[in-house]
Amino acid sequence: LLPETQRERFDVVLVRPRNPLNIGAAARAMANFGFSRLSVVAPFEATWREARSAVDALDVLLNAREAATVGEAVKGATLVAGTGSLTYRKPEQRVVRLAELPELVSREMGRGGRVALVFGPEKHGLTRDDLSWCHVLVEIPTDARQPSMNLGQAVAVCLYELAARVGAAGVVSGPEPVESGRLELLAGVVEEAMEAAGYRAGAMREGERRELRLMLRRMTLTAHDTRRILGIFRRILWRLGQGPGAGRG
Amino acid sequence: LLPETQRERFDVVLVRPRNPLNIGAAARAMANFGFSRLSVVAPFEATWREARSAVDALDVLLNAREAATVGEAVKGATLVAGTGSLTYRKPEQRVVRLAELPELVSREMGRGGRVALVFGPEKHGLTRDDLSWCHVLVEIPTDARQPSMNLGQAVAVCLYELAARVGAAGVVSGPEPVESGRLELLAGVVEEAMEAAGYRAGAMREGERRELRLMLRRMTLTAHDTRRILGIFRRILWRLGQGPGAGRG
Repeated sequence: LLPETQRERFDVVLVRPRNPLNIGAAARAMANFGFSRLSVVAPFEATWREARSAVDALDVLLNAREAATVGEAVKGATLVAGTGSLTYRKPEQRVVRLAELPELVSREMGRGGRVALVFGPEKHGLTRDDLSWCHVLVEIPTDARQPSMNLGQAVAVCLYELAARVGAAGVVSGPEPVESGRLELLAGVVEEAMEAAGYRAGAMREGERRELRLMLRRMTLTAHDTRRILGIFRRILWRLGQGPGAGRG
Repeated sequence: LLPETQRERFDVVLVRPRNPLNIGAAARAMANFGFSRLSVVAPFEATWREARSAVDALDVLLNAREAATVGEAVKGATLVAGTGSLTYRKPEQRVVRLAELPELVSREMGRGGRVALVFGPEKHGLTRDDLSWCHVLVEIPTDARQPSMNLGQAVAVCLYELAARVGAAGVVSGPEPVESGRLELLAGVVEEAMEAAGYRAGAMREGERRELRLMLRRMTLTAHDTRRILGIFRRILWRLGQGPGAGRG
């Protein structure tokens, strides 16, 4: 199981779960494998109420945080991993097999980062918009004839793999990783600069915003890089006569 | 995932499951990870009927075999692995961590054996009697504060580990492994010989029968050894004037 110092830097995020039993099952798997931080994004209200009022509701569920968006739920994470099957999807970010995730998590923890593991709703999994927040997509190797896993079981399988194999890696010295919320701040300033430069009149379409978000995650920026690029774009914005993007910072 | 030739030599065995949803969940995990042979031991009749009549019941469930006892369900297996937590139990056979199971299974498959993975009922897990049929006990590493897993999740975690890591190991030449049913035949003849020798008057108590069963499994006999020892005990029986234990062979 993960040492205590790592557990506090690991979030399980359930996006729009529909079935209270699955929320309970996810919480139970977390307790089984020693994870404690659960966030639930935009749950259906009745589902959420029912899950938390179960007589056997675990502490992990009672202490769960609610978030309106995936972006809000993963704001503090420096590595966001989405889960899913690739059957119907062409991935837009790096794909790793679940068996490779422990090493990725160990390394991220070793450099002082925070990890979020994100699970989509039962029927359709994470949307492209949900996935635009993810640095990597974790693939659970399933049979092509029955690829789609039950949510509670998918959570159990992923957390088992991590509990069994994440090492208490020594602290790695190296550049400070950047939190998801900082990247989104940068994306906002870049967008303002693009608009100010006449790159695209009016608001960006949602698809382009997602592209930009993904691109910033594929670049694996450090906290320092992010500050530097933010500075450059704020300067550009200022020169374009738009002010430094106040109200976004 | 396991190659087809190995899947046919792998059984998942659920012992006295109580909850139809868990039976369905176990079947789904099997389909997800490409396993197809399910046996259910002494299910509660209503539970069993309900599980199989679910609208989304999978082929693996509709094709499941029913057995009266664990011994019957694992009769053809040369390696029987029980699952469970060790919190309340002192194990009477070799214990392996789940992460070690793939290697064990690969080796058994490589020498032409058949494997059965046995799961106990929801609340209390496998009994000592159930476990007496097992060569090894597989431990899923869980948090001591919440060690007990949901049945469907435990099945998913074990099958994931096997699907991800059982290798298509080349055929290992070596002695032929012995099937569980043959060992039980031997145990019966040994028991008769013991009684005939006046070792213990009357029928053996259940606890001693379990001890004998376990001992024979700890010895990791080959098919050849088993035939040889069976011959010796039949000869002893004959000399003790009891006949060759006909009706048991």
